[in-house]
Amino acid sequence: MDTQTRIVIVGGMACGPKTAARARRRAPRARITVIEQGETVSEGSCGLPYYVGGQIISDTALLIRGAKYFREVMEIDILNGTRATAIDRSARTLEVLDIKTNTTSQMPYDKLVIATGATPSVPRALKGQDLKGVFTLTKIADANAILQEMENASPKRAIVVGAGLIGLESAEAFKERGLEVTVIEALDRVLPALLDPEMAAHAEKELVDKGIDVRLGQRVLSLEGDADGHVRRATTEKGEIEADIVLLSLGARPNVELARNAGLAIGTTGGITVNEYMQTNDPDIYSGGDCVENTHRLTGAKMLAPMGSTANKHGRIIGTNVTGGSETFPGVLGTAIVKVFDLNVARVGLSETDARAAGIDIVTSIAPGFEYASYYPGAQMITVKMVTDATTGKVLGGQVLGKGEVAKRTDVLATVLSFGGTVEDVANLDLAYSPPFNGAMDVLHNAANVIRNKMTGHARAMSPIEVNERICEGEEFVLLDVRSQPEWEDAHIDACQCRLLPLNQLRQEISSLPPNTRIITMCRTSIRAYQAQRILDGEGFDNPCFMDGSITAWPYAVVCRKQSS
Amino acid sequence: MDTQTRIVIVGGMACGPKTAARARRRAPRARITVIEQGETVSEGSCGLPYYVGGQIISDTALLIRGAKYFREVMEIDILNGTRATAIDRSARTLEVLDIKTNTTSQMPYDKLVIATGATPSVPRALKGQDLKGVFTLTKIADANAILQEMENASPKRAIVVGAGLIGLESAEAFKERGLEVTVIEALDRVLPALLDPEMAAHAEKELVDKGIDVRLGQRVLSLEGDADGHVRRATTEKGEIEADIVLLSLGARPNVELARNAGLAIGTTGGITVNEYMQTNDPDIYSGGDCVENTHRLTGAKMLAPMGSTANKHGRIIGTNVTGGSETFPGVLGTAIVKVFDLNVARVGLSETDARAAGIDIVTSIAPGFEYASYYPGAQMITVKMVTDATTGKVLGGQVLGKGEVAKRTDVLATVLSFGGTVEDVANLDLAYSPPFNGAMDVLHNAANVIRNKMTGHARAMSPIEVNERICEGEEFVLLDVRSQPEWEDAHIDACQCRLLPLNQLRQEISSLPPNTRIITMCRTSIRAYQAQRILDGEGFDNPCFMDGSITAWPYAVVCRKQSS
Repeated sequence: MDTQTRIVIVGGMACGPKTAARARRRAPRARITVIEQGETVSEGSCGLPYYVGGQIISDTALLIRGAKYFREVMEIDILNGTRATAIDRSARTLEVLDIKTNTTSQMPYDKLVIATGATPSVPRALKGQDLKGVFTLTKIADANAILQEMENASPKRAIVVGAGLIGLESAEAFKERGLEVTVIEALDRVLPALLDPEMAAHAEKELVDKGIDVRLGQRVLSLEGDADGHVRRATTEKGEIEADIVLLSLGARPNVELARNAGLAIGTTGGITVNEYMQTNDPDIYSGGDCVENTHRLTGAKMLAPMGSTANKHGRIIGTNVTGGSETFPGVLGTAIVKVFDLNVARVGLSETDARAAGIDIVTSIAPGFEYASYYPGAQMITVKMVTDATTGKVLGGQVLGKGEVAKRTDVLATVLSFGGTVEDVANLDLAYSPPFNGAMDVLHNAANVIRNKMTGHARAMSPIEVNERICEGEEFVLLDVRSQPEWEDAHIDACQCRLLPLNQLRQEISSLPPNTRIITMCRTSIRAYQAQRILDGEGFDNPCFMDGSITAWPYAVVCRKQSS
Repeated sequence: MDTQTRIVIVGGMACGPKTAARARRRAPRARITVIEQGETVSEGSCGLPYYVGGQIISDTALLIRGAKYFREVMEIDILNGTRATAIDRSARTLEVLDIKTNTTSQMPYDKLVIATGATPSVPRALKGQDLKGVFTLTKIADANAILQEMENASPKRAIVVGAGLIGLESAEAFKERGLEVTVIEALDRVLPALLDPEMAAHAEKELVDKGIDVRLGQRVLSLEGDADGHVRRATTEKGEIEADIVLLSLGARPNVELARNAGLAIGTTGGITVNEYMQTNDPDIYSGGDCVENTHRLTGAKMLAPMGSTANKHGRIIGTNVTGGSETFPGVLGTAIVKVFDLNVARVGLSETDARAAGIDIVTSIAPGFEYASYYPGAQMITVKMVTDATTGKVLGGQVLGKGEVAKRTDVLATVLSFGGTVEDVANLDLAYSPPFNGAMDVLHNAANVIRNKMTGHARAMSPIEVNERICEGEEFVLLDVRSQPEWEDAHIDACQCRLLPLNQLRQEISSLPPNTRIITMCRTSIRAYQAQRILDGEGFDNPCFMDGSITAWPYAVVCRKQSS
């Protein structure tokens, strides 16, 4: 290709700079320009909650590469303080506004890259969103404004609207700064886009344990201010909540106006449509980062995936393709991970909720276990929920959470999903084993084997949600806890259906169990509970099952008081 | 199948108990017997070095399940203190010796499982191996004997013979107990079966930094004792080393006598031959755990893989197949991980050494990077060495080490290898990203992309081994360090060929570089060094390259003094 190719990139945050750097390394003589509205480029915006919370001391740590670096090292023309206002596709020119001087110029391009990112979603109907003390958080400037507000106005009470990734990270940040924090979420659970209800309940519990006031199933209708126009409270369907500072974290809307006005295709998700080469419907215009829609690798469905990790992959592929290469992007798995105080929480692929909504016949497992060898000091529990196709055993998704190591299991599952692997594949993975790093059987091995045992009919389980419902409805069944007496005393489910019968006494005392009542076994991680189920099977009990994940995965507190003790 | 099937299992450590438990859960009425020489079953033997080192306080922590549990809960007949002495395959009986009473009996079986494990390899020629104070470490009894010796004899100086996994873990254990420790290894590097030389050098450096005396390339010829028959020194080709306690950790030899005497096939590796069902050449006799040979999933070669993780997988499959099921084991990847003091070290698949020995044309990369977002507090560096097929880009192996998170990258690579994935697959993995857990680009993404850049000819690198050789041979070239002045002052390679020229000054000062001398660039992680190579390419320099892994992966100390200044 012509080494003098003019490559113009709109957007200097993640995908844009990555595209520019990649293009430069492939085409030393290309003329590469980046149009950026703000005064910085290449912000590490995913770190913003940790800057607000004080774990990251200076915003300079979040400036990964300065414009100077791009100019001096890369010979990339970074035009800060400029805005792309229109594309003339037939003339192949970009109209660029110099914001300071308010002058417009036409910039010719051979290849144009739209990396305009996304803007925080704020419902237009939300009254009071312009009050002082109301913020969003996607740029360093937002974070500095919040820190300035904390410095100047010493807010005592924060409201975070939206219990998604940034919402929960920000709730923790405000708490770190000593504020009282309320999280308000319209849906029935935290991280609703990521987690099934019984998994989300663990994240909610962690927030509550750390002193966060979590309000679910209510929408903020309006924000009200004081005489100075400073926010002082939020009103939801369920009442008023006082606040001195409000963070709106309701997701992000792709910035597609430039593309739409130029007649480029926009998908139903609201993101710019691109093919696997990250090319729009104009072959000379590429797009990547938060402004495009992605393809889900499992379902083929279009989805938004505003993640720095994805933007970087887009940038590398676009940088290749605008310099004569030909690389493709296979799509995303919706992988996400978040630290919720001391709890690590992650999702990859489809949740049970997603899969059922898509009409897929699935088998799931909830497998708790130690992060590494149980006898090695400090081992914490984690829990894996695995979702698989009921017919083929193909793994469709996973949710992993716990105070121990969660990212490894998530990334292994992401890799399995990328290759269309099955539970048998997972069970046979030769994962790295040594006591400080893992048990001889990884939690993923166990999660896969539980599903295999269910698929062959040996294992039968009931979800903690269903067990909880049956308890609350006062149904007659036995929740047979087969742990030891000391374990029971340490913590147990305080329901009238619950009964302790340690596994090593089960065979002798089996005649004490009611013959015509459903028996649901449980223990700490379901290993003993499954064993108990098999013993009951062998003794001819009718359809015994175990509670998936047992007490480790039980997300509820005391559900009802014992009727007699 | 007949629910009264008699299943007899020889060996009660890992594969044996797993087989028994799995068989019981599938076949409630099968008659299951475990023959075990020792007085315990199901030892967590991988934890022994941590018990010797004191991190694990009591040996009871390493007894995962007692015989009582198997008997009472599982209705499995555990015969401790018995030894299987012969198999009569035509009669389908096992001859069993009761060690205490010295009586022999014949035990009929329908399915026999040989899980006899392995025994520490000790060369017959090694004189003095029977002296007091000389140990091996594969059982709790061994660990207790060592602890007893430390209690009674207060040894000051320990020698560990063999720098493999258990050797290095044990060296750390002795150091934790306050002993002076020497590790003696016959080959030229530590962990020689796992790591390439330039990666092994980092593990060696960590041992030396922590005060271990590491003696490579020398074989222990004899151990000598004092008048009481207690070991006091070791003699190698290179001299004498004093010691009060000696641990022999020279690998393990599969226990195959029972199988061999029964006419079962033994492989060239010395392990019992089994098919993918874990079945020996007698269809009623299965075998698993440390006594069998495994198949390498990539090469198809037979190999020994004495790992608790593998033994457990074997056990589950055998437990299935002896109760009428039909499951197969796909083999292993040689995955291994070890904590070497503060350094985490892992290998999966083929090393460069392995691949070259097998005649495979390969491309490798050495990619250092932060374990998670560089700006998130506490981030440590790790280094990934990736080995791929030069033609297809198929990933063949990885070595990962560093003071940061290593197990995750290893397990992701193990998963990629299981599916025959390529560097493009790795580069597109949707791994979990959030600053406390990862950077926007994982080190694996970078390692894969370096290889892709090499395959397209954009990137050219030289291994640190070769650079070091050229330095030591006094060759004329420029080792161009393109980091900043403060980074240089912090640490740099002190060789006459090395020159500082920060990347942001490279374009201006490029004319100061000698035009006809080979230029090898370097920085912290090779990202800037690659950029510098591309700038030099663009300016017409002849075949510039960067040093793979740059200073982070540089395993050597000062190599020679500067000739001037």
